[in-house]
Amino acid sequence: MITKKQVKYIQSLSQKKLRDSEKRFVAEGPKIVDELLAIGRTPPVAIYATEAWMSRTAVAGLPVQPVTDDELQRLSFLPAPNQVLAVFGQPAADLPAGPWQLVLDGIQDPGNLGTLVRIADWFGISKIVCSTDTADVYAPKVVQSSMASIARVSVLYTDLESYIKEQGDLSVIGAVLGGQPLPSVEVRLPAALVIGNESKGIRPGLLPLLTGTVTIPRIGQAESLNAAVATGILLSHLVR
Amino acid sequence: MITKKQVKYIQSLSQKKLRDSEKRFVAEGPKIVDELLAIGRTPPVAIYATEAWMSRTAVAGLPVQPVTDDELQRLSFLPAPNQVLAVFGQPAADLPAGPWQLVLDGIQDPGNLGTLVRIADWFGISKIVCSTDTADVYAPKVVQSSMASIARVSVLYTDLESYIKEQGDLSVIGAVLGGQPLPSVEVRLPAALVIGNESKGIRPGLLPLLTGTVTIPRIGQAESLNAAVATGILLSHLVR
Repeated sequence: MITKKQVKYIQSLSQKKLRDSEKRFVAEGPKIVDELLAIGRTPPVAIYATEAWMSRTAVAGLPVQPVTDDELQRLSFLPAPNQVLAVFGQPAADLPAGPWQLVLDGIQDPGNLGTLVRIADWFGISKIVCSTDTADVYAPKVVQSSMASIARVSVLYTDLESYIKEQGDLSVIGAVLGGQPLPSVEVRLPAALVIGNESKGIRPGLLPLLTGTVTIPRIGQAESLNAAVATGILLSHLVR
Repeated sequence: MITKKQVKYIQSLSQKKLRDSEKRFVAEGPKIVDELLAIGRTPPVAIYATEAWMSRTAVAGLPVQPVTDDELQRLSFLPAPNQVLAVFGQPAADLPAGPWQLVLDGIQDPGNLGTLVRIADWFGISKIVCSTDTADVYAPKVVQSSMASIARVSVLYTDLESYIKEQGDLSVIGAVLGGQPLPSVEVRLPAALVIGNESKGIRPGLLPLLTGTVTIPRIGQAESLNAAVATGILLSHLVR
């Protein structure tokens, strides 16, 4: 039996303010929950699972509470809940930066942000630095589209101008229109790739701090590329 | 004044069956509607617009009906309708294929499909060939995420096995796990890049018809990349 209090608590975690104060987030579905448990950087606080999930999981030591499909539906943020919903502790944003960092300046769409975390993980980037007006990486939609990569990438929120000024010897490459075209870009490492807001691009205050620029050459006529697609293309050429 | 019949007709176009029989689709918002009108390949059948849109548009000769914000809300498929909703005729899928085609085998997510149309347009690809179980390119969510590229790219639905067998001298390159790694792939043109379903990949029946394969090398640990992101990366290396 789940209680009204439990339902209310889970629902409260849809709000950034509550997630921040509790330092927790919600993930759903066996694919993501199983992988987060396997990675082990996000301590499970509560796991609500149906018989289907429990029958094939080693649950010893896990804070699992059995629920029916109806109960899971009451807890879930998804239109079609899937076997398990878990509350995890947020990992510390303390993974060391490698040769490349990703800097996000005002990404608004939760799906884009989750996809960007997954792209960073694919290219071995362990540090993402976001402006304070970027979407929250622990929002349910972001967690679902990050596909557990959220536990392998540290995501920090800070004032980007101050952050870049403090870095000293870091190449700061902005994705802009009319920049240096791929694939002819040479970058001295360590480096950060800066991706701007979906419609406004990189904010004017950051432009003087860039040490280089990069552009994806356009062959056809589309006005723009989706921010996550553009980031994937740029990293596939820049990270070797 | 809009009538109940008009509301019912627009709503009916959310169903593929009706879109197919009427050969029409709905687009919303000034950005997409203005660009579709400018491209001119999709004849406007009806345009429902608020004063905000009409005051800065040359409406002479256009089938425009003024509506209030409340009326637009009743017609719209969007949570936040934006100035204009238009019904267009579907363009004929008759643009000639260039050196590259894109073949989609069972893409399910409407946002992915719209993003794929936009990526094709960015890289100058004018022909997309879809399996019959791929999402419908004229579904409202696909139209919105394609950003008017839908009028510059021909999208054909057909049996992919038969289609590929009929092509004769076409390189058919499948995006698969464990294929030829980027960027060392050499492709004889004309060529088609085949992208599989988001979770199942390319269907087994197509694999023997591939003349080559390609893979994006993974540096980190993410299990996979989003299908649209992967396609963008592959085309950015393959199309020159």
